[in-house]
Amino acid sequence: MPAGIDIDLDFIQQELDRRRPGQSSITTSRQEADKVELLSGVFEGKSTGCPIGFIVRNTNQHSQDYENLRCLFRPSHADFTYKEKYGVRDHRGGGRSSARITISRCVGGALAKLALRQLGISVKAYTSQVGHIALEHDYRHYDLTLTEQNAVRCPDPEKAAQMEALIKEVKAEGDTIGGIITGVVTGCPAGLGEPEFDKLHAALGQAMLSINAVKGFEYGEGFAGVTAKGSSQNDVFRCEEGRITTATNHSGGIQGGISNGQDIYFRVAFKPVATILTEQETVDLEGNPTTFTARGRHDPCVLPRAVPIVEAMAAMTILDFYLLKNGYKG
Amino acid sequence: MPAGIDIDLDFIQQELDRRRPGQSSITTSRQEADKVELLSGVFEGKSTGCPIGFIVRNTNQHSQDYENLRCLFRPSHADFTYKEKYGVRDHRGGGRSSARITISRCVGGALAKLALRQLGISVKAYTSQVGHIALEHDYRHYDLTLTEQNAVRCPDPEKAAQMEALIKEVKAEGDTIGGIITGVVTGCPAGLGEPEFDKLHAALGQAMLSINAVKGFEYGEGFAGVTAKGSSQNDVFRCEEGRITTATNHSGGIQGGISNGQDIYFRVAFKPVATILTEQETVDLEGNPTTFTARGRHDPCVLPRAVPIVEAMAAMTILDFYLLKNGYKG
Amino acid sequence: MPAGIDIDLDFIQQELDRRRPGQSSITTSRQEADKVELLSGVFEGKSTGCPIGFIVRNTNQHSQDYENLRCLFRPSHADFTYKEKYGVRDHRGGGRSSARITISRCVGGALAKLALRQLGISVKAYTSQVGHIALEHDYRHYDLTLTEQNAVRCPDPEKAAQMEALIKEVKAEGDTIGGIITGVVTGCPAGLGEPEFDKLHAALGQAMLSINAVKGFEYGEGFAGVTAKGSSQNDVFRCEEGRITTATNHSGGIQGGISNGQDIYFRVAFKPVATILTEQETVDLEGNPTTFTARGRHDPCVLPRAVPIVEAMAAMTILDFYLLKNGYKG
Amino acid sequence: MPAGIDIDLDFIQQELDRRRPGQSSITTSRQEADKVELLSGVFEGKSTGCPIGFIVRNTNQHSQDYENLRCLFRPSHADFTYKEKYGVRDHRGGGRSSARITISRCVGGALAKLALRQLGISVKAYTSQVGHIALEHDYRHYDLTLTEQNAVRCPDPEKAAQMEALIKEVKAEGDTIGGIITGVVTGCPAGLGEPEFDKLHAALGQAMLSINAVKGFEYGEGFAGVTAKGSSQNDVFRCEEGRITTATNHSGGIQGGISNGQDIYFRVAFKPVATILTEQETVDLEGNPTTFTARGRHDPCVLPRAVPIVEAMAAMTILDFYLLKNGYKG
Repeated sequence: MPAGIDIDLDFIQQELDRRRPGQSSITTSRQEADKVELLSGVFEGKSTGCPIGFIVRNTNQHSQDYENLRCLFRPSHADFTYKEKYGVRDHRGGGRSSARITISRCVGGALAKLALRQLGISVKAYTSQVGHIALEHDYRHYDLTLTEQNAVRCPDPEKAAQMEALIKEVKAEGDTIGGIITGVVTGCPAGLGEPEFDKLHAALGQAMLSINAVKGFEYGEGFAGVTAKGSSQNDVFRCEEGRITTATNHSGGIQGGISNGQDIYFRVAFKPVATILTEQETVDLEGNPTTFTARGRHDPCVLPRAVPIVEAMAAMTILDFYLLKNGYKG
Repeated sequence: MPAGIDIDLDFIQQELDRRRPGQSSITTSRQEADKVELLSGVFEGKSTGCPIGFIVRNTNQHSQDYENLRCLFRPSHADFTYKEKYGVRDHRGGGRSSARITISRCVGGALAKLALRQLGISVKAYTSQVGHIALEHDYRHYDLTLTEQNAVRCPDPEKAAQMEALIKEVKAEGDTIGGIITGVVTGCPAGLGEPEFDKLHAALGQAMLSINAVKGFEYGEGFAGVTAKGSSQNDVFRCEEGRITTATNHSGGIQGGISNGQDIYFRVAFKPVATILTEQETVDLEGNPTTFTARGRHDPCVLPRAVPIVEAMAAMTILDFYLLKNGYKG
Repeated sequence: MPAGIDIDLDFIQQELDRRRPGQSSITTSRQEADKVELLSGVFEGKSTGCPIGFIVRNTNQHSQDYENLRCLFRPSHADFTYKEKYGVRDHRGGGRSSARITISRCVGGALAKLALRQLGISVKAYTSQVGHIALEHDYRHYDLTLTEQNAVRCPDPEKAAQMEALIKEVKAEGDTIGGIITGVVTGCPAGLGEPEFDKLHAALGQAMLSINAVKGFEYGEGFAGVTAKGSSQNDVFRCEEGRITTATNHSGGIQGGISNGQDIYFRVAFKPVATILTEQETVDLEGNPTTFTARGRHDPCVLPRAVPIVEAMAAMTILDFYLLKNGYKG
Repeated sequence: MPAGIDIDLDFIQQELDRRRPGQSSITTSRQEADKVELLSGVFEGKSTGCPIGFIVRNTNQHSQDYENLRCLFRPSHADFTYKEKYGVRDHRGGGRSSARITISRCVGGALAKLALRQLGISVKAYTSQVGHIALEHDYRHYDLTLTEQNAVRCPDPEKAAQMEALIKEVKAEGDTIGGIITGVVTGCPAGLGEPEFDKLHAALGQAMLSINAVKGFEYGEGFAGVTAKGSSQNDVFRCEEGRITTATNHSGGIQGGISNGQDIYFRVAFKPVATILTEQETVDLEGNPTTFTARGRHDPCVLPRAVPIVEAMAAMTILDFYLLKNGYKG
């Protein structure tokens, strides 16, 4: 964290509240208070440039919810792979593979946003698809300040209502559903990103793919652009008010791995949550067939609570590259 | 590179020849010999565990091809962003942003393949879509040994012919076209990958997104899977011949960021090559409007030559994680 | 931290108590409870392979002790350099440059020792010199179990008494004194260390030099060996009980940056603590001359409390290289 | 390498010539041409900001000189430890552990010096001790431009003559001798270095300890300072011409791991070269006793040729931290 940034604890807590369980009827009913306490790196309201330590205690553990997981592997969870990797595992709620880890990312992201704000860089995300219900237009068509006005975090109120209805329907079936989150970075200066392995979009991609349940990442025209021809997809340069810019932005704000000063936009695919409330076949630790039915309180769709995580990861990534270019001296 | 691996120089050269320009009528007609010379790290035919240095000289530079680039920015190339980042740039063929850098990746990948071969791990890729011509089935449907039997590197001979025809058509127009490459890793043991930021698929994603012209990455069901429900997408566990496996593989061989022993498969989206042979608007270094028409010899479609690069990046990524888990002691 | 290690919380707290202030009449009289609480990474008494989070709260802050530091730079402290680097600083007790940071190193070292213990590797350190009072022999001459039997942590009881008397004398003057700590690693297998920049002794050196107040590091014969000739300093090989060993160990257990299976021994020089209780000249934040007289409770000699830190850094370094060679799979 | 630096190839070659074998009667008589060829990263005489690749071919290999090493381990060389680490080894001249690797460091250091020169930062080293012949004063007493005027690279002509005589005497005995090199960085701005593990002196220490044959590192008063008291060793602050400085510089230009704007000075201990020309006992690969007598051409004292290596490592370290603070944007 660069030094001299105003650290607004209320803002950090507010960001954390956006991922909090139990915030609406379409998220898990678990009530986790998730209060953040800063431990270091802030002095008289400003960052000192030293690591900002923080702690968010889990005050709502229901260990008995997880006792039935001790001796089996949940389908499409990380139970089996952790066991294969480490030899031992903490079976409670996935242990380290629990999505509670995204709390840290959320706090880190809030801190990054505070630093980016002073640089005029903004990071926004929203739910653009749930199941088959998808927004029809790209981000330029919507007023993104509407995103927080519905439980599903979609800037199109009508589509949001349809998405919410779908999630409730899926929840009633004890099932889950996936979707897509779109992210947008505005105000990013040209020149961020490394030429080879740490291309800006490659780092963004890794950041997004490291979020629980993510299965895909694309930026600019992405997968849809593969059917286009170069002549229609190239972004020709122009000069506007003495500043070199592009007439279009099919590239998504990055060329050759380095930001070009245009908006950076990308899409992130989330699979349906693996925890469903109906009985599934599986095996126990020794490989004997058994069945598993999830207990406890789970999200039918991870998208609404994942929006702040996508923003957080994007904010930290952009800030990293900003500091790499500009140094921490400001 | 782990020690004690048999280093087959012919194999390395052969892999490099797969990316070589001028290998067929649908690739650029540049004739680059691209002969690899190993400099270090190999002794009496085996890797010593020390870095393997190598050099591949460019014997076919036509610097005059690039003289017209000195004073302008090519649309959707990295010319402008390199200038913004570094202040100076080497305008010849993109300088460091030239796709010739993938030669190094190709050689590195060949070395990684030699190590993986001794571990029984195989990495294959193929062209699964060019423009709107797409394979209809997933990788299990095809005989991947057919991939190398046509210029487009597609294991479906009929589709390959269509793709080739499309590329020729696009080439005749002086235009370019994008597509999708599918990658498959078989024989990968369970337990590879890190739990948090360096999830196996996140590292694979970064590796693929760092390849020139890549705009998207997905693994397992990827973007298509967002419309599915958890009940249909979860991979239930089974025990077969004393080994825990999954009945399906929607996950793509990775759960919670760690390999589960099933096949790892993924798709990589390539945009149409930015260099087209028709005139484009652009600006010069001072921002004055000008036009640009590419000279020289260019690929109408990058896919055929990118197949070995996708394999190379996957091979290096898997080997990295294998060594991280198992150490270099073997 | 590798998975499956028995995590003995009492041992960790005991290691932390070795660095605790107020443990004897020759250390600062500050009473910091320094109780460690583990937050993650341990399940049912064993490490899970995931990061072990912990917290040690400072329950004995006397902020008023530091109020006089707000507007000046203490000589030979990091006050000025932090201000130059970060623009802002936390003046209280040095902020991040406070030696309280070694609490984390102590806990990390205790965890590393628990892992090394299962591998038969032992790490010991002791005070070998305070001011001009120095042990006459090398580590093989002493019974290192005596180290903890006196306040100064020196295995020679007679020298320990002299060192203690010297420290008390210096303390009575309001002054401070430096010294040397010797470290010994036994049971380290051959083959640890990297050939180039991360030579085992280079990493050990960096680890030691990163401890507050350290000014020098040497291993094997170190500085004294520069006057010797190759013929007397080379360690010739022998075979004992089927195992290749060396007749002497001038090298200090490392050759070419890689451990050779012999004892690794090294020495670490500590300067006298910068905080003295007599008045010193200095400048305020604007550069105006002023004077500074330290208040509060300070160590006249850092050596006794630094012994566990030297052990901790050595233990973490050795474990890192062990895991690098052997992987985390055990 | 930052962009826009004037790359003076003559200077780079000249630096390389300072480490070249055969340059005087007190170095090995091997004649290695060691001509550097730049491969990338330089365009029209300036660095582009991209990696600068280079190659220096070995044109003077006498493989037969090494044939007798194939089946035994040379005392105090890395032969045995490489075998233990990698399972295989390249026995010729130590393979990767050969000091020829310092060629790369020398070239890297020359590049770093070119960048530092533009920043007004200078890095100098000299031989300050050979065997028991040591300079009596610290670096401020000498005219360092005299360093290159004698074969031993010592700025005191009288002592240099004594050192040279000693080296010739040792050489005549077929033996070797160690010594100390002193390094000095002037013009380094305040604020470079990281607070915790990457303290500036810790990184410098690792860099020096990673040079072949180095056994110790100290900076500022180093080991000698442990007998001093805080009251005599603290550097009190002053203000001179509006700039905060210190009255003395016992600290060696670094406080709390961060540069304070004063000269950085340090000393590096080199052991006697392990290759002596008299017969030594050793074992063969199976542990059977045998003897070894070195053939070929070797340095009786590594110091004269190591001076540019010490400078190179210091230059690269300082530049790294400069870029970390200031970013690559210049």
